[in-house]
Amino acid sequence: MTIETTSQVKFGVTLQSCEHEARAALTPDIVTRLGKKSVSCLVESGAGLAAGFSDEQYAAEGARICTHDEVLHDSNALGFIERPEGKVLDDIGRGTWVIGMLSSFSDENYVAELSRRGIVGIAMERLPRQLSSAQSMDAMTSQNSVMGYKAALRAADAYGGFFPMMTTAAGTIRPAKVLILGAGIAGLQAIGTARRLGAVVTAYDVRPASREEVESLGASFLDLGIDLSAGQGEGGYARELSPEEHAAQQAAVDKKAADFDVIITTAKVPGRKPPMLLTSAGVEGLHRGAVVLDCAASELGGNVEGSKPFETVTTPRGVRILGDPSLASEVPATASALFSRNVADILLHFIGENGLTVTEGDELEEALVVSGKPAAPAIAEAAEAVTAAATEERTDQR
Amino acid sequence: MTIETTSQVKFGVTLQSCEHEARAALTPDIVTRLGKKSVSCLVESGAGLAAGFSDEQYAAEGARICTHDEVLHDSNALGFIERPEGKVLDDIGRGTWVIGMLSSFSDENYVAELSRRGIVGIAMERLPRQLSSAQSMDAMTSQNSVMGYKAALRAADAYGGFFPMMTTAAGTIRPAKVLILGAGIAGLQAIGTARRLGAVVTAYDVRPASREEVESLGASFLDLGIDLSAGQGEGGYARELSPEEHAAQQAAVDKKAADFDVIITTAKVPGRKPPMLLTSAGVEGLHRGAVVLDCAASELGGNVEGSKPFETVTTPRGVRILGDPSLASEVPATASALFSRNVADILLHFIGENGLTVTEGDELEEALVVSGKPAAPAIAEAAEAVTAAATEERTDQR
Repeated sequence: MTIETTSQVKFGVTLQSCEHEARAALTPDIVTRLGKKSVSCLVESGAGLAAGFSDEQYAAEGARICTHDEVLHDSNALGFIERPEGKVLDDIGRGTWVIGMLSSFSDENYVAELSRRGIVGIAMERLPRQLSSAQSMDAMTSQNSVMGYKAALRAADAYGGFFPMMTTAAGTIRPAKVLILGAGIAGLQAIGTARRLGAVVTAYDVRPASREEVESLGASFLDLGIDLSAGQGEGGYARELSPEEHAAQQAAVDKKAADFDVIITTAKVPGRKPPMLLTSAGVEGLHRGAVVLDCAASELGGNVEGSKPFETVTTPRGVRILGDPSLASEVPATASALFSRNVADILLHFIGENGLTVTEGDELEEALVVSGKPAAPAIAEAAEAVTAAATEERTDQR
Repeated sequence: MTIETTSQVKFGVTLQSCEHEARAALTPDIVTRLGKKSVSCLVESGAGLAAGFSDEQYAAEGARICTHDEVLHDSNALGFIERPEGKVLDDIGRGTWVIGMLSSFSDENYVAELSRRGIVGIAMERLPRQLSSAQSMDAMTSQNSVMGYKAALRAADAYGGFFPMMTTAAGTIRPAKVLILGAGIAGLQAIGTARRLGAVVTAYDVRPASREEVESLGASFLDLGIDLSAGQGEGGYARELSPEEHAAQQAAVDKKAADFDVIITTAKVPGRKPPMLLTSAGVEGLHRGAVVLDCAASELGGNVEGSKPFETVTTPRGVRILGDPSLASEVPATASALFSRNVADILLHFIGENGLTVTEGDELEEALVVSGKPAAPAIAEAAEAVTAAATEERTDQR
């Protein structure tokens, strides 16, 4: 039984090719961390540049700087910020582990494709976040946290007034009134950052539990005067509202919105069309100079009616709507540092005595594997058929 | 003796035509303030739009919305963010008061031109800032304050990492180390804002008095290990350093700079070439991903070698140098609110029983008038010759 080749885990990352992606799935400090666990790292030349990390920095920590093809061919595990598609997917060999946000909840075809190719898909979005052992692997939390920080900064920079109150000989400038819609991880971080900057912050979320979280950060909870309780959805995300609730919420939020100078919407639901939180009627009521930042802007629509991804739309009445769905990527050093720690901890969790394996009965590991589940090394020959069957079943459950 | 026309002060503002200027010299609330003192306001249509104020808002407070030409012809006092030049100057009638930053310290020709045209030039840069009655008129302070706030925000937005420390399950992100060079009004406001955001802030200024100010805001004062004391210049601005001092300071700052993630330079000296505070050698020592924001970037050079106004220069080693000399204008609502209060208070100070006059012996008023000094109304006929002579003398003193 020769297990040397599998027990030496080689973890590779490629240069992200997406236009709006500056993050890297591996940072130099994590190369060191993985090295201590005998994981060697392969880094495509330039993979960290946009996040502020040079090839030299990776090499100094012991990584091997490679071409794109070398990373794909020589690694037995790959980390991705954005899941591999097209040509990249074609070049990933059978049995290779792919760790990343795979959109497995919303895209069954992609998971089936990974299965067909015999790729071991580790879907970070499936992390059982309730497990304490999962905390350091939680990329959804880490990236949304960065997004919330950046959202407050970006909105403050876009707004034509001060966030803090300023008392001067030439009069007092009142602090900005900021409304945060969606009080998940991103929303809470946005609240904290806007408050640090001195703004008066109000927030809203359909989950009743969020009131306490919002108030514990020193912000006010927006009272809509309507009951939308029992909103807590699966996995800590807000459930989608019924059409009636949505209409009632929308009308109330739209009306209340007029009191604010800056509105930040953070209700990004992975892989689905984001819920509308502010309609054109709400935007219409805002004063000239007000700024709306939609963190969920997408081609399918966003949290704000009329927002466009990566564009600023100015209404005839002088309200600016900024659409930016990739704010985490715009703090690439911090976002990469956290993401690569998340990926590395997932990778390390799967490493056993004989290299990469899924431990039967391990709740965390079983939740993450969506395709190509490898058998225990001892029964490797019989594994393939079993794996394919198991994967199909899993896929059918969605 | 008919003085009705002069006693009715008509204050006008035009649309600023400079590409990077979004501020207005009059905001709607100040229209009300002036109205209470019987000053009527003329506003060029669209003058406040870039700052977030519509014609309707001005009209609602009692302003008359006019064409550009009407404002210039019908006003007896004009307020400017940027001093009038060319065609605008040609259209200003003899005897009209022009209030603004006129660069009178550095541009004698301009002052002479105003004199020749019989325009009453009120140079806001000459405000005797030490007088307590001058505080609400101090546009240098108000605009630099806005600039400092914006500088910290802009730098935080440009930096690829977090400003605050963040402790997460995936590790601790250390706070950004920010160095502020130049600890005048702008520098102090930048210190305060960067600290609000959670950065660890160090600052430096050649004025020894600034150490105490810096430390009182909770920042550290950069110890260069060289003596550049007795640096307090006229009017509260830093004096220019001798060549030897400059070289010594430069070498020391360049060396210390390498410890920081973000550097903000604020040593903008009105009307003069800004002092160099960070050379290419200093920039070269910064780590990849470091951000330098030069608030004094200009065509003549800035505080940072290699900066370009309104551009981001990325060095081969991955350091970004942002040049932005009009940061105050990029918070146009707040900057305009403060500036228009400053202008209005200057205007009101000159209004006596018989309209606009310069009161003999009034320290504040005499300091501000650089051209076309009007005589007391009773001796108006004899005034012109006297005025011209007085102006020439004043001009010669520079």
